[in-house]
Amino acid sequence: MDRFQVRTDLALEARESFGEDHVEIRGVSIHEDYDKERDIRVTRVHIETENGAKAMGKPVGEYLTLEAPGLSEEDEDYHREVSEVLAQYIQELMGEGEQSVLVVGLGNRDVTPDALGPQVVNNLMITRHIIREYGVRAFGKEQMNQVSAIVPGVMAQTGMETFEIVKGIVEETHPDWVIAIDALAARSSKRLNRTIQLCDAGINPGSGVGNHRNGLTRENLGVPILAIGVPTVVDAATIIYDATGDRSRIAPNLNGMFVTPKNVDEMIKRLSYTISEAINIALDAGW
Amino acid sequence: MDRFQVRTDLALEARESFGEDHVEIRGVSIHEDYDKERDIRVTRVHIETENGAKAMGKPVGEYLTLEAPGLSEEDEDYHREVSEVLAQYIQELMGEGEQSVLVVGLGNRDVTPDALGPQVVNNLMITRHIIREYGVRAFGKEQMNQVSAIVPGVMAQTGMETFEIVKGIVEETHPDWVIAIDALAARSSKRLNRTIQLCDAGINPGSGVGNHRNGLTRENLGVPILAIGVPTVVDAATIIYDATGDRSRIAPNLNGMFVTPKNVDEMIKRLSYTISEAINIALDAGW
Amino acid sequence: MDRFQVRTDLALEARESFGEDHVEIRGVSIHEDYDKERDIRVTRVHIETENGAKAMGKPVGEYLTLEAPGLSEEDEDYHREVSEVLAQYIQELMGEGEQSVLVVGLGNRDVTPDALGPQVVNNLMITRHIIREYGVRAFGKEQMNQVSAIVPGVMAQTGMETFEIVKGIVEETHPDWVIAIDALAARSSKRLNRTIQLCDAGINPGSGVGNHRNGLTRENLGVPILAIGVPTVVDAATIIYDATGDRSRIAPNLNGMFVTPKNVDEMIKRLSYTISEAINIALDAGW
Amino acid sequence: MDRFQVRTDLALEARESFGEDHVEIRGVSIHEDYDKERDIRVTRVHIETENGAKAMGKPVGEYLTLEAPGLSEEDEDYHREVSEVLAQYIQELMGEGEQSVLVVGLGNRDVTPDALGPQVVNNLMITRHIIREYGVRAFGKEQMNQVSAIVPGVMAQTGMETFEIVKGIVEETHPDWVIAIDALAARSSKRLNRTIQLCDAGINPGSGVGNHRNGLTRENLGVPILAIGVPTVVDAATIIYDATGDRSRIAPNLNGMFVTPKNVDEMIKRLSYTISEAINIALDAGW
Repeated sequence: MDRFQVRTDLALEARESFGEDHVEIRGVSIHEDYDKERDIRVTRVHIETENGAKAMGKPVGEYLTLEAPGLSEEDEDYHREVSEVLAQYIQELMGEGEQSVLVVGLGNRDVTPDALGPQVVNNLMITRHIIREYGVRAFGKEQMNQVSAIVPGVMAQTGMETFEIVKGIVEETHPDWVIAIDALAARSSKRLNRTIQLCDAGINPGSGVGNHRNGLTRENLGVPILAIGVPTVVDAATIIYDATGDRSRIAPNLNGMFVTPKNVDEMIKRLSYTISEAINIALDAGW
Repeated sequence: MDRFQVRTDLALEARESFGEDHVEIRGVSIHEDYDKERDIRVTRVHIETENGAKAMGKPVGEYLTLEAPGLSEEDEDYHREVSEVLAQYIQELMGEGEQSVLVVGLGNRDVTPDALGPQVVNNLMITRHIIREYGVRAFGKEQMNQVSAIVPGVMAQTGMETFEIVKGIVEETHPDWVIAIDALAARSSKRLNRTIQLCDAGINPGSGVGNHRNGLTRENLGVPILAIGVPTVVDAATIIYDATGDRSRIAPNLNGMFVTPKNVDEMIKRLSYTISEAINIALDAGW
Repeated sequence: MDRFQVRTDLALEARESFGEDHVEIRGVSIHEDYDKERDIRVTRVHIETENGAKAMGKPVGEYLTLEAPGLSEEDEDYHREVSEVLAQYIQELMGEGEQSVLVVGLGNRDVTPDALGPQVVNNLMITRHIIREYGVRAFGKEQMNQVSAIVPGVMAQTGMETFEIVKGIVEETHPDWVIAIDALAARSSKRLNRTIQLCDAGINPGSGVGNHRNGLTRENLGVPILAIGVPTVVDAATIIYDATGDRSRIAPNLNGMFVTPKNVDEMIKRLSYTISEAINIALDAGW
Repeated sequence: MDRFQVRTDLALEARESFGEDHVEIRGVSIHEDYDKERDIRVTRVHIETENGAKAMGKPVGEYLTLEAPGLSEEDEDYHREVSEVLAQYIQELMGEGEQSVLVVGLGNRDVTPDALGPQVVNNLMITRHIIREYGVRAFGKEQMNQVSAIVPGVMAQTGMETFEIVKGIVEETHPDWVIAIDALAARSSKRLNRTIQLCDAGINPGSGVGNHRNGLTRENLGVPILAIGVPTVVDAATIIYDATGDRSRIAPNLNGMFVTPKNVDEMIKRLSYTISEAINIALDAGW
């Protein structure tokens, strides 16, 4: 069987493409936890070496995936629980100590399945300007993180690479951390809108392909970065390939087409709220 | 090969599913015109008998399809030409004489690929209230159509069938014609956002399946109805079936998923403008 | 002092324009309650006779006004309390017994201070179609109200009077009650976005002036109507008049201008949610 | 008469507050042109000295105001003419030679009267990324300006000063010019949505008051800046003061209230299109 490069932004799915779970890939470790009560599966894929990175088609780093089928339902209580679980993992990856954090909402706010990042930023508790003007005591606290945020837009809207915009703002405002939120492409439609990936390896806005000079990475930005992503689309070509195993069956007019649930507007709205709540919980402290 | 019921709202595609063009179906006539200069293909499928209707899975009536590949491009001049061609067909189907027309924008304005109808209504020239208050001379004319419009919403938003809302308004305001605009499902992704179907057989909002008691038809409404539709999605199951010819390959999680181009927001905006311009041109007269 | 006709949709303010509270107007009774704990003042103005109606410039009926200064703040808990208080008054005015209710969201969804009605409808729990298909047992209940809703749009969008649309739908779907939501004009900017008026005298969409043939009233619709309104604007002319007592000071270019807080978008969003929650609470029962 | 500090962002109105036109202010020159055919009045206020700046309450620079009453009407042809006139003044102020230009859309896209800047950016022809990838020949030209754009958001959304964001992006992408678009406050409601001010003195986002350390000025940014503004609101306090000449008449609850026309959503949409067209025309060349 030919190995057509199916597109996925999930390390979990890149791992699965090697087939059975017990196949070992050198330089990649994998660990799975299942929270039965809440039906949340957490998979950690650790890409440890450049060899592992090459095999996986993803940069070295820790990739943490929450699969929570209930996320695609309209259940406020369940979403709140996921926010709390997610907040714990965000805190684990970012470490302790009072910090200033710049949240970057990637994607195009006018294209529904791509609007996750901009919508997350809409619901964030923004504190940097208040703390700088009045101190953390304005919030009745002893210590507290400073949160700032930007929705940079996509290249067709700005004429600039996202990297240029974020780099400029980072150099001017000196955050300790960047959190970047983006909508992802999955390989399997069963993961749409119910899977959240956290990773510390950075992110390539609008790509997956091409050069990586301008990725939002710790190396390029000079500060650590936590990327949070949710798969909201599957490439139409991918579902054909997965059903047939034959790339010649993919009609050319499927290029640029994607698969998404009919109620994607509503799902993006709910998911973005769940993620912004998780960030609010995680950052509302001087841990 | 099993005959899986692929979903299409286009009579043209229902016709194609019988295979080669020269297969004749009793009670269905077909005629094609091609405007080479503008690259617009117009196909008339006339379902003449109940037998033909059963074979096609569509009610008796005239179905007129414009295929204009340029519609998916951002070319204002081309869109204006299509508006003019479309206006002629609207006038042909509606006949002559000063009339009052109720335009109904079907679909859910909050779900992008379903928002075609509501967006068409946004751009219409609404005249009924002005003519009733000040006469057609307010527009400096001798005779003129009265245009009114409603966006009824979908059942999940209203708790009512679209038919109940439209029927109530028709009985209260007595239009001579109803024009209903709706987003459709196609079988082939190559027809998305570049095909416009006109038909005089009425329309079943939000269905295609189930009972037809409450369709928007001349019989049910008591006035003639012209339905204008554009395919904006393909069912995900359909593209798998078309690539494999095997319904067992359709993963259950593809239910409720659809295929659409990434820039669907922009396309719906452009197409809705093109259609509303066509209606404005067609109705701006006492023809 | 000349009696310039300042515009207000609040019976409370029409009453105040007579000056001191102890002036009695024949045919108008007034009663005030103050809930100190929640800082909610409820004033009942009962216009009992046609004489009273003429004096007040409002039709005969019961007008109940909640003034809750906290409504203009972003305090979720307080808004929930107001929803509960409001729900009680809705139940009081509508009486007991299982009912079917049509909620009408008046106003223009594209003009922010006028979008209150459409936004309230967005958040309603719509049940009519489910109950009619599956019975109230679908909700695990013994009895339950049927809720349907419509956003008719304004005359410039539809070419029809709101009355025609609502009347048609009422005649087709036979609700027991109509609830109409609308944005109002106040006389005093201190009442903006913190006052809710309930009344059983019907409502004149888009007017306040002119003939009342086509008001949404019990007499015209054939079913009782509860109108819920919130003042979201003050006419610019009114604030000048109130500051000067002199209508000659009102510059002509102030016509069509209104006064509103800068964060009106956010306020309308919050208030519409508070009102839809109140309706959801009030109707989620077979009282 | 006491000199209450009425708020205006228009140099033209600051000048008028000195009363009769023939009063001379040292360090301020004024010149007026009237294009009778198109009914466009252009006033140039040149603040030449620090003394003049102090008297006017505005920094040293050239302020050019177009007053075009027709702008508040829905007349596409007239708007196109204003775009062309405006384009000439933009070119005059920016000078000749191929350039790279960063357009900054100031204001809050979710608050209608403040959304002018973000909406202007939506309609711009963005070219920088294409020219950098494929050269100007991609457009079939010999020389051409590079256009990039950003919508930074307001401080409550970002936690950062607009200056920090723009400064960072300027330092990273090195444009030759910045054009900043903002909604302004006028003193007189007769100027709303029909006046456009161009100035080369920079702009203080979200202020008018307080320190000017962080203004978007040539001095602070290191590149020349052209500010384009349209008054979309009048402070409610101002219209009371202007009608009464007495600041004690301004009710405290008018704080934070503004006066705006009812159809402000529609006006902002039209005006933003007119301005983006002007910028597109002005920059579509290597003049």
